[in-house]
Amino acid sequence: MAGDAWSDLKGRVTELEALQQVTALLSWDQQTMMPPGGAAGRGRHLSTLSALAHDKLVDDALGDWLGELEARDPADLSEVQLASMRKIRRLHDRARCVPTSLVRAMAEASSAGVGAWVEAKQAADFAPFAPALTRIVELVRETAACHGPAAHPYDHLLEEYDPGATVADLEPMFARLGGELATFVHEVSQREGPAQLDLSLDEPGILAVGQRLVTALGFRPSDGRLDRSEHPFTVGIGPHDVRLTTHGYADDLLGSLTGTIHECGHGLYEQGLNDDWVGTGVATAAGVGLHESQSRFWENVIGRSRPFFGWLVGMLAEQWPDASFDPDQLYAAANRVHPSFIRVKADEATYNLHIIVRFRLELALMTGDLQVADLPGAWNDLYDQLLGVRPPDPAQGVLQDVHWAHGYFGYFPSYTVGNLYAASLKEAMQADLPDMWDQVGAGDFGAVLGWLREKVHARGHLVDAPQVFRDAVGDRDPVADLMAHLRVRHGAMAGQ
Amino acid sequence: MAGDAWSDLKGRVTELEALQQVTALLSWDQQTMMPPGGAAGRGRHLSTLSALAHDKLVDDALGDWLGELEARDPADLSEVQLASMRKIRRLHDRARCVPTSLVRAMAEASSAGVGAWVEAKQAADFAPFAPALTRIVELVRETAACHGPAAHPYDHLLEEYDPGATVADLEPMFARLGGELATFVHEVSQREGPAQLDLSLDEPGILAVGQRLVTALGFRPSDGRLDRSEHPFTVGIGPHDVRLTTHGYADDLLGSLTGTIHECGHGLYEQGLNDDWVGTGVATAAGVGLHESQSRFWENVIGRSRPFFGWLVGMLAEQWPDASFDPDQLYAAANRVHPSFIRVKADEATYNLHIIVRFRLELALMTGDLQVADLPGAWNDLYDQLLGVRPPDPAQGVLQDVHWAHGYFGYFPSYTVGNLYAASLKEAMQADLPDMWDQVGAGDFGAVLGWLREKVHARGHLVDAPQVFRDAVGDRDPVADLMAHLRVRHGAMAGQ
Repeated sequence: MAGDAWSDLKGRVTELEALQQVTALLSWDQQTMMPPGGAAGRGRHLSTLSALAHDKLVDDALGDWLGELEARDPADLSEVQLASMRKIRRLHDRARCVPTSLVRAMAEASSAGVGAWVEAKQAADFAPFAPALTRIVELVRETAACHGPAAHPYDHLLEEYDPGATVADLEPMFARLGGELATFVHEVSQREGPAQLDLSLDEPGILAVGQRLVTALGFRPSDGRLDRSEHPFTVGIGPHDVRLTTHGYADDLLGSLTGTIHECGHGLYEQGLNDDWVGTGVATAAGVGLHESQSRFWENVIGRSRPFFGWLVGMLAEQWPDASFDPDQLYAAANRVHPSFIRVKADEATYNLHIIVRFRLELALMTGDLQVADLPGAWNDLYDQLLGVRPPDPAQGVLQDVHWAHGYFGYFPSYTVGNLYAASLKEAMQADLPDMWDQVGAGDFGAVLGWLREKVHARGHLVDAPQVFRDAVGDRDPVADLMAHLRVRHGAMAGQ
Repeated sequence: MAGDAWSDLKGRVTELEALQQVTALLSWDQQTMMPPGGAAGRGRHLSTLSALAHDKLVDDALGDWLGELEARDPADLSEVQLASMRKIRRLHDRARCVPTSLVRAMAEASSAGVGAWVEAKQAADFAPFAPALTRIVELVRETAACHGPAAHPYDHLLEEYDPGATVADLEPMFARLGGELATFVHEVSQREGPAQLDLSLDEPGILAVGQRLVTALGFRPSDGRLDRSEHPFTVGIGPHDVRLTTHGYADDLLGSLTGTIHECGHGLYEQGLNDDWVGTGVATAAGVGLHESQSRFWENVIGRSRPFFGWLVGMLAEQWPDASFDPDQLYAAANRVHPSFIRVKADEATYNLHIIVRFRLELALMTGDLQVADLPGAWNDLYDQLLGVRPPDPAQGVLQDVHWAHGYFGYFPSYTVGNLYAASLKEAMQADLPDMWDQVGAGDFGAVLGWLREKVHARGHLVDAPQVFRDAVGDRDPVADLMAHLRVRHGAMAGQ
């Protein structure tokens, strides 16, 4: 019976979702709560769940249920059912076409890769990492080849993180953005002097402000929590259990709070997903780029705006009655543009140049135009060309990120896609909510969140991210919007 | 190939262990970290993992591997292999003989049962719980019947929690203990006056002392943690990740600390299991009664002894320099005998009478000699007879524990089995370690823990608990040992 295929599919997807959510919880626990001795056992837990989920996903029966549903008249199926079928079909086909031997080889290579990367980074020497990375690049290319022909082999990698994204779309956008930004960053960084804050505050106080802040932004404490971890991250275990982590550095109030707001942006997306769609696979983000647009929107568009700091100083003064906080000074420090070597410490503008470097190098490695042996030189040349700085050693250059050691190729672009989306979301939101900045200045984030809930969060993965974005902002040019956003920030000091 | 059957079995058991450990972590998280909104999702996670584990356990292939190994000459197999085969055979056969429909019916009945129990307890009225409990008792009897003939149908329930325990062993032991204890409790409670402590201390301080205490007893912080929860419990996620929880009540220093020591006793057992046996199923406790013997040993034998309090006051004085602590007064308060209605608040001696009441009632319900409708009256009569008190209402009587609402029949005896084992372990340990009480008085618990490690913990589930116990203590009479222990405590004030 056709009706049964849908309920069979839903039962299976419910299991897959549960396994995915449990895996997310294990990962959260590992980074926040687990005692050091638990590491070996945790490895066994994760590999067991991963193998179980793989078996459940590639299973013939699941393919049969999908086939049965796909043969029906789409008019007889709901929008959610159709989206669910599309999503599960993609995951099923992708998982089936990569042989288990290749999956295992990749797991081994990335495990060895992370070890070699740690060693290389500590020694500030690329050589110990080169053979491991060569092997990883080979396997990533081999994996991409399994998925069959594509306009560009890299499209298969994008599909893993950002379904619907293509090199044909990204490459010209990144090229334009790179050109405009390189000039912009050079000009602004010459003009703006250093604007460092010289504040030293207590860490528990910073964490307490972070907690109040995420609640003020709309993060529901009944459906989530905020903990400390060395590297901030967010994990969604369904919309009613979202875990944020952050740190609080005594000498870095702004870095700590913007990091917290960033994770909160991810968390608000997760809390805004539709709980009624359990068992369909579409109560998830539409892709990591769109996810990043939410963290970047809250971190950069809202959290680095002048109105936001105008409101925030009240909360800071409550926490530290003896200190004094000047919103203009905070705003200037939070928006200072200064090209440097390290991506994760970059300002909002320069950040995208770091990504564009990585994107170009990944493309060249995938096509074979660049060999791993030539990577450090190519890295330094691109930094010179785009950022105007040349890393003094590989630890501050090509070895700074762990992504490639894990085999994560195709992930980096999503950071800049997030910034681009966020800029256009800002423009569209301002048009819909003319008094939004007054509200932000008053600490009232309800309308902003409501807009994102409707246009982005509640849509889950009914359609791919590029479509969610288009439906939300209309026919906007995100490169122009991002540059306009940055020009406002760096033209007038009281910009939004 | 015969060699393959063992590695296939081990691979499967590794998966089963991983699923069991992940389930334990989910349960810990649920009670300590999970935001309230996460409850529905957590239910899906747990039922998904439980179904997956069930499928992996009842699978024909697993039976085939076992059959192949069982057909071999035992002389060709190691002690660990033979123990592993016995354990997995039992679990496999037990899981296969209960039909899925009955498992599901039991899950539904216990879910309804807990709801009805909460309502009944709040109303202090047995009536709302009676139909749910009647159904649960029916299903428990039906489940026991699935396992085939036995000397007593209740043996099948004991097997679930305490493999190797039988009614034939327990009933006469409990009958002797009940008779001796009823007289003892009556006499001692008449003689000893109230010895309540009138201390009020800060909760964080109590928790801090608890943390120092478990480390002093030998709990490895690198392989575990201690958190707060409303109901203290311990979860072992393998010997290198053991999670204790406790509470700290400002007006109940002794209750808080003995609760912490109790959980630490469970945790020390878990940390002492043999990590080399991963994938065999025998790196676990040998049963819940033996597990309870470890918590009771540390809580009662050590943690309520006069030498222990002599050492503890030093730690208390460091935490609260302005308060004054008298070891004799603490010892007297911690050992006061006073029969009352509630099991979980009972003193060390009376506690066992609470268990004996439950054991007798469970036996009668299982044989059909007692109907659920007559349970409240039978409860009150037994309390009258054994403890000399008659509960004023069902909330303080038959409704006080949640176990039966969950369908946990056969669990209660393990609490008293734990006390009996602990008493004989004490006698055997004293013979082996003549200066153990001097060491305890000096806060040196290494030799005590080392003895338990060797005699109990490191043996895992190589043999069933009754055998572990016999091997550890020789031909001792645990009823006589428990009564002797209590008589020492209540004869001389400086007893151990």
